[in-house]
Amino acid sequence: MPPTITAFAQSPDRGRGLARDMGVRWALEEVGQPYDVRLVTFAEMKEPAHLALQPFGQIPTYEEGELGLFESGAIVLHIAERHAGLLPDEPDARSRAVAWMFAALATVQPPIVELGMAMILERDQPWYEARQPMLQDRVRQRLDQLSARLGHAEWLDGAFSAGDLMMVVVLRRLMNSGLLQEYPKIEAYVARGEARPAFKRAFDAQLAVFSASSAS
Amino acid sequence: MPPTITAFAQSPDRGRGLARDMGVRWALEEVGQPYDVRLVTFAEMKEPAHLALQPFGQIPTYEEGELGLFESGAIVLHIAERHAGLLPDEPDARSRAVAWMFAALATVQPPIVELGMAMILERDQPWYEARQPMLQDRVRQRLDQLSARLGHAEWLDGAFSAGDLMMVVVLRRLMNSGLLQEYPKIEAYVARGEARPAFKRAFDAQLAVFSASSAS
Repeated sequence: MPPTITAFAQSPDRGRGLARDMGVRWALEEVGQPYDVRLVTFAEMKEPAHLALQPFGQIPTYEEGELGLFESGAIVLHIAERHAGLLPDEPDARSRAVAWMFAALATVQPPIVELGMAMILERDQPWYEARQPMLQDRVRQRLDQLSARLGHAEWLDGAFSAGDLMMVVVLRRLMNSGLLQEYPKIEAYVARGEARPAFKRAFDAQLAVFSASSAS
Repeated sequence: MPPTITAFAQSPDRGRGLARDMGVRWALEEVGQPYDVRLVTFAEMKEPAHLALQPFGQIPTYEEGELGLFESGAIVLHIAERHAGLLPDEPDARSRAVAWMFAALATVQPPIVELGMAMILERDQPWYEARQPMLQDRVRQRLDQLSARLGHAEWLDGAFSAGDLMMVVVLRRLMNSGLLQEYPKIEAYVARGEARPAFKRAFDAQLAVFSASSAS
């Protein structure tokens, strides 16, 4: 039986591929593993049945036989360790790819999420405009460093890996910020990720949920 | 030859064990692996030699033979995969322990870091006081959920694992916030982590660097 993941019943981003099941879908498509999707409403995410699977009331989750997993990074790593295509065979290169997964989620993502959170939670506050340059500069600091490391390389460390997958997923949250355009190397890197057939299949599958729910 | 990690030459927290080499030291102590430490100044962290090892100009790093690694989560996982003591043998339980590592760094840590960042970067801003309740509530949301999941269990998922190690490291950043005291189960959980002999050895080793640098 294929694994089952959870995803939003109603897409909060109108199908732009930013919901956090995107990385998991993409990983499953990269390794050619079929999967089932169970859609959950915002109300269902806060109910005991879902919290038993995801203690923080979020998506995605991953169920496979007796195993229930949460955290997109952990799910992608679980998939990458069990199927060829997302991690190098050489042990040192494998550890470095995992380091990029953690870097994406723990170092690059937080200032990006803060910029987005301010837009959602503090848009009407008197300090909103004054804080924007500071929030943007915190993102720029990470993009400066990432761009310097990436240089003209195609991927972060040799062949495409789960590290690139997580990094592209995280960077895509900046799509409407205007910041990616300041970093042509990173913009091209994200575009390379988006051009992968597995990304497109994952994106289309997530979009199909939105299209179906908005038509109903 | 033992691995070499990097740590701050001058401790910014005056030896309270919050610098990010703490998790790596603790993991190495749990598995009984000796290690060398190379101290780096704030200036050295921004130089090309260190950036080649850590693209974001931070500590810790981990060097072992030809391998250079960064991101404390990735380093702890690398250690946990190669030595007994930090991950269960059973594959499903192992994936769940890794999920708690990602949850600590990607879900629980960000609002905690934001609370700390505001204190450092926005203390003198006119909006500082007004934002505090919102920042604290974002942390409380995660602590509510974590406390509900933990219940009266000793550790997050059976035996102590690298997931607990990372979670305790992250939660300790709240030590002066007053928030941990609102969650007796979490406070006791953190205390259980701090009571482990390996934690104490790691803490003392980090403190010794501070004591030496402040005496010189």
